[in-house]
This record gives sequence, C-alpha cells and structure tokens, in this order.
Amino acid sequence: MHRTAPHSTTTLQDVTFRRKVLPSDAATVRAIVKATGFFTTEEADVAEELVTEHLQHGAASGYLFVFAQMETTVTGYACYGPTPATEGTYDLYWIAVNPHCQHIGLGAALLNEVTGDVRAAGGRLLFAETSGTPDYTPTRRFYERTGFTAEAVLKDFYRKNDDKVIFRLEVV
Amino acid sequence: MHRTAPHSTTTLQDVTFRRKVLPSDAATVRAIVKATGFFTTEEADVAEELVTEHLQHGAASGYLFVFAQMETTVTGYACYGPTPATEGTYDLYWIAVNPHCQHIGLGAALLNEVTGDVRAAGGRLLFAETSGTPDYTPTRRFYERTGFTAEAVLKDFYRKNDDKVIFRLEVV
Repeated sequence: MHRTAPHSTTTLQDVTFRRKVLPSDAATVRAIVKATGFFTTEEADVAEELVTEHLQHGAASGYLFVFAQMETTVTGYACYGPTPATEGTYDLYWIAVNPHCQHIGLGAALLNEVTGDVRAAGGRLLFAETSGTPDYTPTRRFYERTGFTAEAVLKDFYRKNDDKVIFRLEVV
Repeated sequence: MHRTAPHSTTTLQDVTFRRKVLPSDAATVRAIVKATGFFTTEEADVAEELVTEHLQHGAASGYLFVFAQMETTVTGYACYGPTPATEGTYDLYWIAVNPHCQHIGLGAALLNEVTGDVRAAGGRLLFAETSGTPDYTPTRRFYERTGFTAEAVLKDFYRKNDDKVIFRLEVV
C-alpha cells in the first residue's frame, strides 16, 4: 500500500472559502490556532472568543471571518474587521493555517479573500500587527511577501525587547 | 457686584481625585466629552460605554478611571487600562477636561494620577493615540508637554489625510 502525506497531494484547487460562521468554528479555530504552535492558550482563548462574539452578534460584533475548507475540514481561517472610529480602515486580527496544509499558499489565498471583501466593502487600508522577535520572522516575511509594508515599530510594546511591528496594506 | 468667571478662581488645590466609578459617571463622562466640542456623538457613546463596562465588570473590564472633582462636580476624567497581550503596557483611552476648568493644568494633573497608578501596578509604558490633523494640534502639544514622544504615524489611518499619531510615555 502506497501512503502519501495529506499535504503533499493537496493544492489550492481543493480549497473552498466560506464566510458564514458556524457554531463548530469556535472549537475549530481553537484547534487551528493551537496546532500552529505559535500562540499561547490565552491567545487561543481570544481567537475562540471572537468566533463566539460573531455567533452572538453577527457582523455587528466587528469580527468577520473567512474559513478555508478542504471538503468538510477547516484548514485555515482569517478574522478581520472594520477599525472603530475610522473610515475604510480594517484590521486583520488573525490569520492561521493548519500546519498540515502550509506551503501551498493557503495563507496568501486567505488574505486575498480578505482583501477582496475589504475592497468590496469600500475599504482603503488593512493593518496587521505582529511581534518583532526572531520567532515571528516567518510571520513578518509572510506580510512582506503578500504586499504589506512595515509602517511603524513600537519598541518594547509586548514586553521588554519584544516590539510591535505594524504592517499596512493599501487595498486599491 | 463683582463677578468672576468660575475658572479664574479655580486652582488645582480645589481638586480631588477619585478612582471609584459611580453610576452617575456614565452621564457625567458623556457631558464632559460633549462639552469639549472635540468628539462626535458616536465617540461620546463609546466614552460612556466604557464607564458602563467598568460598572458591570469592574477592573476585569480592562477600563480604569480617574475622576477629577471640585466639591461634588466632576470636572475632568481619564480612562486607561492594561493593553491586552502585553506585559506592563497600558493604553490611555480618554482624557478630557470640562472647558470651564481648562488652563489650570487639570489635564496634566489627571495624567500624573494615571501614570502613578500605572507605575504602582508595575506598568512600563503608556500609549496614547490621536489624530495628526490641525484640529488636534492642542492634543498633540498636550502629550508632548507632558513627556510623551510621538513614536509612530500611520498615514491616512482615520480617513484620507487624517493620520494616527501614536504617543509613547515611559513610566519609570
């Protein structure tokens, strides 16, 4: 019997994108976020909470989602929303892909869905924030590769020697 | 009969500071914020909502307050809180002084109370954000005068030609 690792046969052709948030997404989002190995339990709590907020209040929660699915399995997601007190500015709150499905461009594809939605809603700008530490070099490279510019650095923001880097994307 | 405008006889000696949030503060905060002439009704809604959040959830709301009072009249207030996912970083969300009580240093005195509280809680940094437009020049001057540094500018953040300026204060 010939066995193939799931990710080696998976391509973006197999992916569908979904906007409607389902009750099961709370647990799914937690699982994906934890699986990346990138986030603390506290951060996974926040990620799950945003799903719950959307389930309770819909778009009025300020949190919008795009889920990437292969058949019925959610393999990644993005959470974004309009930045309060702005005109046409959006924040990308979360973007995470299951480690088994990385390296096929799923993160960039999810981001492309988000920017399409932001553009359709009349948005101008999308901001993403991440850490300046070496651990987050792949994240920063991801944003640079997908067209973001590092617009600002807040020194020691998260903790001493852990800066916040603010990335900006013009959605036009 | 000799009449004196109330503010001309008022000094900081007459001011007391209060941390406990009272149900009446919701309306008071709205009145002060509106009286400054600086904020929209939508912004006044947000200011009031933060008071309500604190009344419902206490410090767990993430919103802490300092009120400045002259006898029983609230003449200004500041709202601040720990920035989620950081160690020792705080955001100054609101600082507003009744126009009748400006120019006696009440804003700076309120800020001094806030930084004292942040320091006592082990905080390192306090951030404040404001607009880069000429309308907000007095606000930016206030932060500069009270020791903040403009650390970053996000172009067109609020709307086209309306930048966000991020001010940083080291609380040490």
